[in-house]
Amino acid sequence: MNKKVDYPVSDIRHYLEPGPVVLVTSRWQDETDVMTLGWHTVMEFTPSLVGCIIASGNHSFELIRSSRECVINIPTADMIDTVTDIGNCSGADVDKFSRFGLHTSVAEKVRAPLLDDCFVSLECKIYDDCLIDTYNYFIFEVVKAHAAPSPKYPQTVHYTGDGQFREAGRHVSRRERFLPQNL
Amino acid sequence: MNKKVDYPVSDIRHYLEPGPVVLVTSRWQDETDVMTLGWHTVMEFTPSLVGCIIASGNHSFELIRSSRECVINIPTADMIDTVTDIGNCSGADVDKFSRFGLHTSVAEKVRAPLLDDCFVSLECKIYDDCLIDTYNYFIFEVVKAHAAPSPKYPQTVHYTGDGQFREAGRHVSRRERFLPQNL
Repeated sequence: MNKKVDYPVSDIRHYLEPGPVVLVTSRWQDETDVMTLGWHTVMEFTPSLVGCIIASGNHSFELIRSSRECVINIPTADMIDTVTDIGNCSGADVDKFSRFGLHTSVAEKVRAPLLDDCFVSLECKIYDDCLIDTYNYFIFEVVKAHAAPSPKYPQTVHYTGDGQFREAGRHVSRRERFLPQNL
Repeated sequence: MNKKVDYPVSDIRHYLEPGPVVLVTSRWQDETDVMTLGWHTVMEFTPSLVGCIIASGNHSFELIRSSRECVINIPTADMIDTVTDIGNCSGADVDKFSRFGLHTSVAEKVRAPLLDDCFVSLECKIYDDCLIDTYNYFIFEVVKAHAAPSPKYPQTVHYTGDGQFREAGRHVSRRERFLPQNL
């Protein structure tokens, strides 16, 4: 994979809007965790907002709520076994970084680590916590984005429940049909 | 396409979690509209909740806010030109149903129509309006779901911005790696 470089936070829809499974890293005090997450949506360009459901039963929930930070990392299809296995054990029982041999780098604006094997890493801070208690819904601001310059359309994985995934398929442009203000 | 039949509302993640572009229909008084939407997430199984960003500049925004209802329809890749064109004109200027030759059926629990050419239609009512004013974020409950029995993994389209789409690709099972309680 190409080394990640700075990416404009206002354009993270390019990677998140297609709906890939993501790996969310977190750190609070002396604990670090990573979880698999599929329920997220872009909410705004500027500020760059992303909403995520993080069920309160996850070990990461308290780490993220307490630190008010995380990193959203996007894996590719070649990581599907790791993605699955991370989602099927708990950071309360195991050090997932050690078990799955995850390589990490230091983030710039948060304490949670970047996952080196993921082609995108989005450093996030909680922007609004008003729906955490009612829906486990976190509204994050992406404060720093890192992305590999190529491929521009990586083969992400998308979850459908019941242990079944879809890979991202063919890239299709319809740019010529768009109004300029909608691009 | 196979005729749609009843589908359990608690399992709509099967269709929505992979992140497809959707077509949202709405009706208020004597106006009916349809819009293309890419910013959505599943929020809960039971009640069956979906969160959507609907920018207030859309003609559909007031129809949905006033009626407190809509239908989320999921199109397949063969509809990509229609999906694009619906997103690049306004219901304030044109009757999109007539312009794009959209066939509709009557919904059971809402007044907005089902789109016959879409393989899934989810009848929705606003469940919580607390983030509409601040983020244009609608929390809907899916009150009735319709889905074509096959194909089970339809070729959806996913938007990446800038007029560029990805089609859904290969279906991959990792069911054997999941804990029973996570299926």
